[in-house]
Amino acid sequence: MLEVLPREGHPLFSVAKTHFAEFGKMLRGTTSLTVSNAVGLDQDIGLNWALAVELMHNASLVHDDVCDEDDFRRDHPTVFAIHGAPLAICFGDWLVAKSFECATLAAKECSGDSFTAITLIAKVMSELSAGQAKEFTGAPILDWESYDTLVSSKTVPLLSAAVEGPILLSNKTEYFETIRNFIHSLGLGYQISNDISDALGKDGSNKPFSDFYRGAPNAVSITFRDTLKNGHRLEFEEWVRNKFRLNHTSWLTEIRQNGAVDICTQQLQQYIRACHHYKSSLPKELQKALSPLVSYLEQSVKQQLPSAKNQSESP
Amino acid sequence: MLEVLPREGHPLFSVAKTHFAEFGKMLRGTTSLTVSNAVGLDQDIGLNWALAVELMHNASLVHDDVCDEDDFRRDHPTVFAIHGAPLAICFGDWLVAKSFECATLAAKECSGDSFTAITLIAKVMSELSAGQAKEFTGAPILDWESYDTLVSSKTVPLLSAAVEGPILLSNKTEYFETIRNFIHSLGLGYQISNDISDALGKDGSNKPFSDFYRGAPNAVSITFRDTLKNGHRLEFEEWVRNKFRLNHTSWLTEIRQNGAVDICTQQLQQYIRACHHYKSSLPKELQKALSPLVSYLEQSVKQQLPSAKNQSESP
Repeated sequence: MLEVLPREGHPLFSVAKTHFAEFGKMLRGTTSLTVSNAVGLDQDIGLNWALAVELMHNASLVHDDVCDEDDFRRDHPTVFAIHGAPLAICFGDWLVAKSFECATLAAKECSGDSFTAITLIAKVMSELSAGQAKEFTGAPILDWESYDTLVSSKTVPLLSAAVEGPILLSNKTEYFETIRNFIHSLGLGYQISNDISDALGKDGSNKPFSDFYRGAPNAVSITFRDTLKNGHRLEFEEWVRNKFRLNHTSWLTEIRQNGAVDICTQQLQQYIRACHHYKSSLPKELQKALSPLVSYLEQSVKQQLPSAKNQSESP
Repeated sequence: MLEVLPREGHPLFSVAKTHFAEFGKMLRGTTSLTVSNAVGLDQDIGLNWALAVELMHNASLVHDDVCDEDDFRRDHPTVFAIHGAPLAICFGDWLVAKSFECATLAAKECSGDSFTAITLIAKVMSELSAGQAKEFTGAPILDWESYDTLVSSKTVPLLSAAVEGPILLSNKTEYFETIRNFIHSLGLGYQISNDISDALGKDGSNKPFSDFYRGAPNAVSITFRDTLKNGHRLEFEEWVRNKFRLNHTSWLTEIRQNGAVDICTQQLQQYIRACHHYKSSLPKELQKALSPLVSYLEQSVKQQLPSAKNQSESP
C-alpha cells in the first residue's frame, strides 16, 4: 500500500498520511489475496487486484466522511476534519484513479476475463455512489426489505469485488452463485454489526446513535420498529420520516430499554449461520480463504454482546 | 450521453438533470469523435471513448464546484448550489464510474493498446485530482513556469485523453510527439482564455475576478505581476501570498487599468500560433479533426477583446 500512495512532495502526501495513520483491518484486501492464492492466481496479479479493492474501499470512506460530515474514523480524526472537504474530495478521487490503475495492471497480465474484471470495479463504484446518494434522496428505510436493497448497494459490492475479482481473473467461475449468496449474507451481517456498533457508540466515532442523529438508516431502528404496535409504531415512523429530529432522548431511551440491540444481534447471528451454510459447499481452499471474513464478524458479535447488555441496563 | 445518464427512479436522476440542464460545448467529446473518424476507428469504439472523456470531464467539473464552492456554471446553478455537497460528491463519483465503464467497453473491442488506453483515463484522473489539490496546498502561482506546471495537470490531461485515446485504440501512434506539443499549447491557451473570462466576469459565474476572491491562480494576475517593478511587485506578491484577501478594490482597479488583460490576450495569441505550427505538420485528416479546438479558442479571444477594452474603460 505504502508503495502506491503519494510520496513526500506530492500535493496529497500529508492528506494520505492523515487517512492512513491507521490502515484499518484491510479485510477486503487481505481476503482478495487469500482468494487469489486459493484459486492459484499469479501473485503480482493478485496483489494488484487486492490493492484496487482496498484503494476503492478507502476512497469511498474518505468521500463518505465528507458526505456525512464525520470527524472520526478508526479512532482518528478524518481527512475531512483535518484538511477540509476540498482536499478530502481530491484525495478520494486520487484513490479512485489509483484503484483503476491497479485493476488495469492486474487485468493486463491475467488469463481470465480482464475487461469484465475492470468493469466489476467500475460497477462497484457506481453502485456505491448511487447507494450513498439514496441515503440523501430516498424514502426512509423502515423495513428489512429496503434495508437489504440499500446494503446490497453499499456493503456488498466491495466484498464481491474482493472475492469475485480473483475468480474472474483466473477464469474459475463455477462457484459464482454460491459465492454471491455467501457475500450477500456476509454483507448484511457486516452492515448490521456496524449499525449495532453505531448504536452502542463503539464505532470509533465516540458518540452512540450517531446514525440516528443524522437520519441515516440503521438496523437497530428497523428492529425496534418491528417491536412496536399500532399507534406507537406510527409515531416512531413519523419520527424517522422527520429524520429523527425531534424528541431524541425519549426514543433513544426506549430503544435502549426494549432490547432492540439484542434482537438485532440475533438477526445478525442468522446471517452468520447462512454464511457458514453457503461456505460449506465450496472447495476446501476457498472455504479456508473465506473463513477470516466470517470469523471477523463472529468476533465483533462477541465484543458487542456484553456491551449491549451494559447499555440496556444503564439509564 | 442521455442514454448512459441515470434514468427516472435512479437516486441521481434529478441531480444529473440539474448538471446537464446545459450540456456545454462538449468540445472534448466531439473532438474525440472527429479524431476517431480521422484515424478510422470503429464508430462504437470511438463513441464509447468520447463518452468516457466527456463523463470524466463533467465529473471533474461537479467535484471542482464543491471544492471551489461555485454556485454557477454555464449560466446555471451548480449541483453543489442546488443539491448540496454530499449529492454533488456522489454524482461526481457516479460519473467517474460510468466513464471507466465506457472506456473499458471501448478498450475491449479495439485492436490497439487497450490497457494503456484505460490507464490513460486513470492517469488523467490522478493528475486532475493532484492538480486540484495543489491549488489548496501548494505555493501561490506567481510566474509562468509554475502556471505551466499547474495547467499541465489541470487542463491538458483531458484534452490529451480526447485526442490520444483514439490514436492508442487504433494503434496509430506515430504522431504522438507533435500531438502532445499541440495539446500542451492548446491547454495553456484554454486556461489563459478561461482566466481572462474569469477576470472579466464572463465565465457564467456572474462575478468578475472570482478567481482572485478565492485565491485561485489566474494568468491575468501573473501578467500583471510581470508589469510591476521592485517594491510594488513585492507588495503584490505579498497580496497573492495572503490569498488576495486584503484591499481587493485598489489592486483590482490597478489590474483593470494597466492593461494586464490585453497583455494576457497577446500571450494567448502566441499559444494559438504555436497550435497552428504543430498542427500543420500532421496529416490532413488529423488537421481537420483538430481544427475546431483551435477555432473555438480563436473565437473566445475575439469575444473577449472588445469587452476587455470596455472593462478597462469602466471605473
